[in-house]
Amino acid sequence: MSAQKPSIPKGTRDFGPEEVAKRKYILNTIEQVFIKYGFMPIETPTMEKVETLMGKYGNEGDKLIFKILPRGEKLKPLLRSFENIKDVHDSIGQDLTSENINPLALDALSESLAKDMAEEALRYDLTVPFARYVVMHQNEIAFPFKRYQMQPVWRADRPQKGRYREFWQCDADVVGSDSLLNEVDLIQIYDEAFVKLGITNYELRVNNRKLLAGLAEAMGSYDQFADFTTILDKVDKVGIDAVLTEMYSKGLISSEELLRSYLNYLNSSKSNEEKLNYLKTTTLNKYKVFQEGVSEIEYVVSNCVNLKSEINLKIDGVLARGLSYYTGCIFEVVVNDERCSLKSSIGGGGRYDNLTGIFGLPNVSGVGISFGLDRIYDVMEELNLFPASLNQSSTRLLFCCFDDASIEYALPLLKKVRGMGIASEIYPKAVKIKKQLDYANVKKVPFACIIGENEMKTGKLVLKDLHLGTQQELTIDEVIAVLKS
Amino acid sequence: MSAQKPSIPKGTRDFGPEEVAKRKYILNTIEQVFIKYGFMPIETPTMEKVETLMGKYGNEGDKLIFKILPRGEKLKPLLRSFENIKDVHDSIGQDLTSENINPLALDALSESLAKDMAEEALRYDLTVPFARYVVMHQNEIAFPFKRYQMQPVWRADRPQKGRYREFWQCDADVVGSDSLLNEVDLIQIYDEAFVKLGITNYELRVNNRKLLAGLAEAMGSYDQFADFTTILDKVDKVGIDAVLTEMYSKGLISSEELLRSYLNYLNSSKSNEEKLNYLKTTTLNKYKVFQEGVSEIEYVVSNCVNLKSEINLKIDGVLARGLSYYTGCIFEVVVNDERCSLKSSIGGGGRYDNLTGIFGLPNVSGVGISFGLDRIYDVMEELNLFPASLNQSSTRLLFCCFDDASIEYALPLLKKVRGMGIASEIYPKAVKIKKQLDYANVKKVPFACIIGENEMKTGKLVLKDLHLGTQQELTIDEVIAVLKS
Repeated sequence: MSAQKPSIPKGTRDFGPEEVAKRKYILNTIEQVFIKYGFMPIETPTMEKVETLMGKYGNEGDKLIFKILPRGEKLKPLLRSFENIKDVHDSIGQDLTSENINPLALDALSESLAKDMAEEALRYDLTVPFARYVVMHQNEIAFPFKRYQMQPVWRADRPQKGRYREFWQCDADVVGSDSLLNEVDLIQIYDEAFVKLGITNYELRVNNRKLLAGLAEAMGSYDQFADFTTILDKVDKVGIDAVLTEMYSKGLISSEELLRSYLNYLNSSKSNEEKLNYLKTTTLNKYKVFQEGVSEIEYVVSNCVNLKSEINLKIDGVLARGLSYYTGCIFEVVVNDERCSLKSSIGGGGRYDNLTGIFGLPNVSGVGISFGLDRIYDVMEELNLFPASLNQSSTRLLFCCFDDASIEYALPLLKKVRGMGIASEIYPKAVKIKKQLDYANVKKVPFACIIGENEMKTGKLVLKDLHLGTQQELTIDEVIAVLKS
Repeated sequence: MSAQKPSIPKGTRDFGPEEVAKRKYILNTIEQVFIKYGFMPIETPTMEKVETLMGKYGNEGDKLIFKILPRGEKLKPLLRSFENIKDVHDSIGQDLTSENINPLALDALSESLAKDMAEEALRYDLTVPFARYVVMHQNEIAFPFKRYQMQPVWRADRPQKGRYREFWQCDADVVGSDSLLNEVDLIQIYDEAFVKLGITNYELRVNNRKLLAGLAEAMGSYDQFADFTTILDKVDKVGIDAVLTEMYSKGLISSEELLRSYLNYLNSSKSNEEKLNYLKTTTLNKYKVFQEGVSEIEYVVSNCVNLKSEINLKIDGVLARGLSYYTGCIFEVVVNDERCSLKSSIGGGGRYDNLTGIFGLPNVSGVGISFGLDRIYDVMEELNLFPASLNQSSTRLLFCCFDDASIEYALPLLKKVRGMGIASEIYPKAVKIKKQLDYANVKKVPFACIIGENEMKTGKLVLKDLHLGTQQELTIDEVIAVLKS
């Protein structure tokens, strides 16, 4: 067999020991907060049925779902797709070969494989599998159900900075309760987790879809609410003016002035209090849904501020969130630090009133947030926020032996050290001591214990402190005492 | 949209809070042992390139690899496959439709999609991705490299008891060292982890591929060593006689008697000492590779027994292991308990002298073991080995409120309790207290704190112990003290 030069699929990554330690540090920190707030873990399969995922993320999303290749019998319908393509080519008098296949025909073939034949697909987010889980397990669950889930998801997006094809989400959701106390809890979770991670320059933006619904109603475009929010969602990239222009050109706006002044005020650096005052007094309050939005956002913001006055919470009236299932409060977290090259969000979420409805369980309101592990990791690297201890080996002691006899002598000592719960190892061959110490140094092991003829005679071992460069002669019990201290 | 009745792909599973807690308990226990023995974590992507995986697990294995559906341009060669099929049908004068497609043609189409068009595939085990990792990262690694990896793998096997399509492996490997001390360490890891998990009735079977190679050489079938071991691997299922018959019929045996007496002795309940004596004195020692095998197995077994005389280690001369890359010591762990319905292995591994060679890095010997999380889980359920504490909610306290005013009163108290690191929550609505307590009971929360008008006046809260059914009137600080104790 000729040697392959190995590589991995684009948009995916290997993680070495230090990266795994740092990722676990983030996951554990977030998990401890989830637990403290009463959330319980679930895990769902990597593969979901294609029909569970398709149609939930919009047309663009559907295309980014990784599907599993169907095999054998499952491919039978493919012949029909071929025949269709052949008919098309025949009708335009074009030969059908692999080289000249019509691009539209190829797309049709591709789509037919994905939609008619593929049965399984990789998880695209954690929210839809969670909704599926709730419906399937509704009889085992005590509602309100507070679950967290920390697992990878996959999207066939074009990879770029901060965007991977395999990445981890850490989600906390409450379903079966429409109480705004859940929103208050979730905001506190964001705050507590980010503060624990050392990300203090974050900004938690909050808005409410009901405010946007009121706006759309005022603009006479309530029927095109999905378009309205999709365009509004681009504000961060293109600015308010460009958004208004696009809305206008698509006939979504009756009064550009009203909308402009609203968005400008609610996107300004004015205080939450000022924005709440504006919200409570604007003429938009004649729309019932808008009024509800105002009272919800006021309840959530005022409770969060009561519990922690200096919380980084900002009412952001232009925040829209892309996904169509949100119906109430929506959140987004961005890092507000000039040292950070990554400006996109490191978290987001919101309330959805009927996500389980698509799977046959209507009228179950839920609300959730998500942490993006990989972006948080990138931010923490840039801001140098990882504890230095993560950069060390977990191994505390390496036994280095001069010959096979001292290896035999060392094995019960190693067992004794490990028996005390101290991570330790023996260099597995009696090579030159320098080579053994090099190994310890590269692996960042802090101590080495050297054993030769003399040490075996006296029972006094040479313990080297590889950081300080010092050494002592000690019995094995004294060695253990040093390592325990 | 009409409601879908949701389900998940066959062979996959959802895990609820209790299952996740139990799975984590196993993972943490194994991980702590890995760390104590000086192993460091890595993680590799869920998807590998198809060419990285194909050809490493035998023909049967290749078929069980889940591939990712190729899209767009990548599908162009499909037209050629289609033309080939059409030619076959034309040549036998059979119309080609989705219904009457020739099964062999369908297989060919299926294979062509998997081999010529699919680019990514799901990880099938952790060993091949690890070999790929070592080659790609050889310049960052300090050898001997001791890594552990705990991740799911996927196989399109027919699901049955103890066999899932998505399951977890926990692997520890050392590469870049041919020292048998690594085998000794790995056996101790098995022992320590299983004892910690409470699985004391396990049996660690050990053999050496060099003994089998000597046997094959004596039988004149050294050139068909892969067939020899594949057939021998069936001993557990069909017995020694059937194995000998099959080997004989395939021309793999010159002297059935020699092989029969060898296998019978080495598969008997005789002690390791007796078996070692047999190994050291049999005429098979005229084969150099056999001699090497004897001295290796003696070194490993005697050192393990020296370190723990009562270790459940058993020389098993018929153990073969299916995978072809093993070259030295091989291991397998089975549970030896009549209460267990699952008789298959819960772990296995061995030494491979040239696994990284396929990726262009020759002469790097390695040895590793694997724990099968899902089978260990099933065994521990059957033997009732999980600590009772895993069956509890992590939430310690639920605040139950009579009305909105008491909710407002409770929020800062909840914050204070959480601030002390105590997992706690508030029922998010002032529904009937009974309903709130029902929620606590179903979720197995041990304490509830009830707040109404009286409690707000006096500052004395009613703390209910939901296990004992008792209650006390306490200040919030006293509540915290009770929960902390």
